[in-house]
Amino acid sequence: MATRSLTGIKPTGEVHLGNYIGAIKPALTFAKQPGLESFYFIANAHGLTKITDSEEMRQLTRGIAATWLALGLDPDKSVFYRQSDVPEVFELSWLLACMAPKGLLNRAHAYKAAVDENKAAGKEADAGVNMGLFTYPILMAADILLFQPDVVPVGRDQIQHIEIARDVARQFNHIFGDVFKQPHVHIEEKVAVLPGLDGRKMSKSYGNTIPLFSEANELQRLVNRIKTDSLPPEAPKDPETSNLFTLYKEFAGPRQVEAMQARFAEGIGWGEVKKELYWAIDEFMSEPRRRYNELLASPEVDRLLAEGAERARAYSQPFLQEIKKAVGL
Amino acid sequence: MATRSLTGIKPTGEVHLGNYIGAIKPALTFAKQPGLESFYFIANAHGLTKITDSEEMRQLTRGIAATWLALGLDPDKSVFYRQSDVPEVFELSWLLACMAPKGLLNRAHAYKAAVDENKAAGKEADAGVNMGLFTYPILMAADILLFQPDVVPVGRDQIQHIEIARDVARQFNHIFGDVFKQPHVHIEEKVAVLPGLDGRKMSKSYGNTIPLFSEANELQRLVNRIKTDSLPPEAPKDPETSNLFTLYKEFAGPRQVEAMQARFAEGIGWGEVKKELYWAIDEFMSEPRRRYNELLASPEVDRLLAEGAERARAYSQPFLQEIKKAVGL
Repeated sequence: MATRSLTGIKPTGEVHLGNYIGAIKPALTFAKQPGLESFYFIANAHGLTKITDSEEMRQLTRGIAATWLALGLDPDKSVFYRQSDVPEVFELSWLLACMAPKGLLNRAHAYKAAVDENKAAGKEADAGVNMGLFTYPILMAADILLFQPDVVPVGRDQIQHIEIARDVARQFNHIFGDVFKQPHVHIEEKVAVLPGLDGRKMSKSYGNTIPLFSEANELQRLVNRIKTDSLPPEAPKDPETSNLFTLYKEFAGPRQVEAMQARFAEGIGWGEVKKELYWAIDEFMSEPRRRYNELLASPEVDRLLAEGAERARAYSQPFLQEIKKAVGL
Repeated sequence: MATRSLTGIKPTGEVHLGNYIGAIKPALTFAKQPGLESFYFIANAHGLTKITDSEEMRQLTRGIAATWLALGLDPDKSVFYRQSDVPEVFELSWLLACMAPKGLLNRAHAYKAAVDENKAAGKEADAGVNMGLFTYPILMAADILLFQPDVVPVGRDQIQHIEIARDVARQFNHIFGDVFKQPHVHIEEKVAVLPGLDGRKMSKSYGNTIPLFSEANELQRLVNRIKTDSLPPEAPKDPETSNLFTLYKEFAGPRQVEAMQARFAEGIGWGEVKKELYWAIDEFMSEPRRRYNELLASPEVDRLLAEGAERARAYSQPFLQEIKKAVGL
């Protein structure tokens, strides 16, 4: 039997090069292992804990789906669906809630962070906390356990959620028999962290990002703004300490990277490096960008997601029937 | 447009005469008002916060459905379904959770009672509290709001839950526009309280009940155990202070009740009253008991509930699509 992996994708706007290199690319690479059956879903219902504008929600959902498809997610080789198209997730979520001690959720990081922030501001512990935020680790456990993946590739900040899913699965199995398989975590150990325009980690919260699908002239403008030191063009330079080089080696081919290393050693002006970097990113992104714009303009994304939901439900519907039978509903 | 009422039924075992007179009969009478469209559902998914034996859950669910049908719930004139057969309830529950402040649930009676009990016992506040118990007012809000009843007939202990449903509906409408109608509470003011075998209120927790569908000889045995005072047979007796009479007038016809009042005034032995009471209950219950046993032995209950679920979903499916559209899912 194939090993199954499951990846949840948050519907967030403004995807940037750092997201691609640090998260999307490793996820897509991981899923390409031979013998791996990969499930991906857009966690749009999770997004509702924060996004309360329906048009924004629709656009973010379509946008992030188009982004992953444009970057190489193959909807024929994976099962790619919207969370909200799979009602079984929400049914299972209730069944799991009945097995989950409240104390487990009291200790969840995202909730605790909100409480700490409230306390620091002299507010009530639960001020501004909605039940979606408090209970979403249970919905996430349902997302996972409904599809019985062997492995869930996540970032370190998500480890606790997988542990909650495992705890709840164990408790359920303890009471109702051997229904759920325990999912395992996969943590990508050597993930590249891209520098942003100011040299700090590229991050939306720093406002130092290069959006993934910037058009050519915008891309050039942003690359030109990347901070460099004041070494003169003819001075030999160390690629290891250069933000421009760190970016370049992610987007240029291996021979180009080697050639660039040589030019750093000989001495190259930053303006020249920026031109090469812009070309490299632009070339790398031109096909995904074309595909992204094409997808956004057509009903194809919706059709693909609807097909994906059908394939997901071919699995989740009979399995939920089994689960309901096990609890007597 | 017809006014719609919605009644939730807990899958509990050992339904007794007190439940019938105090809750089931008023609910069935209320729903028979002309122009009222009545929805009834078995809240089996709620039951999962306590019942963790699948066979028990199945039997309680079928049993309570057969009970209400045997007592006069007309599945052609009402919509009668199992909560777990309507996935839209659970989908809506998540959407409402995202609109519900956690503070609202911190103050819910059932949760607070559990916390108080824990504290009194020197335990952690949330010891033994599962997320089902904590979040079930949200599921109940979904049960209600999904079917847009005008009125929800409940006991006084349920008023807070309807208020939570109204609060959440208001918050949802405030953000996403006018989606939900606010349900109104109906409280039955003059509900008869039946005395149990020992004279206290008939209640499972006192162990003083007469089960609803006791067979004739069991019924006779129990009626004979009802406490009386030691007045001699020939002494005139006050029907108003007699537990036997309180029970009798609920099950005998108006003429029989009048005759019995006269016999109390003349003097009648308690043994004689018990015989008459036994006959009255047995006659009253003989047809429902026959029907109950027939229903339990046939697949009819399951078929009726499945048909009811189809009718319920004819309403809930398109309405949930509207709701999802309103939030952008």
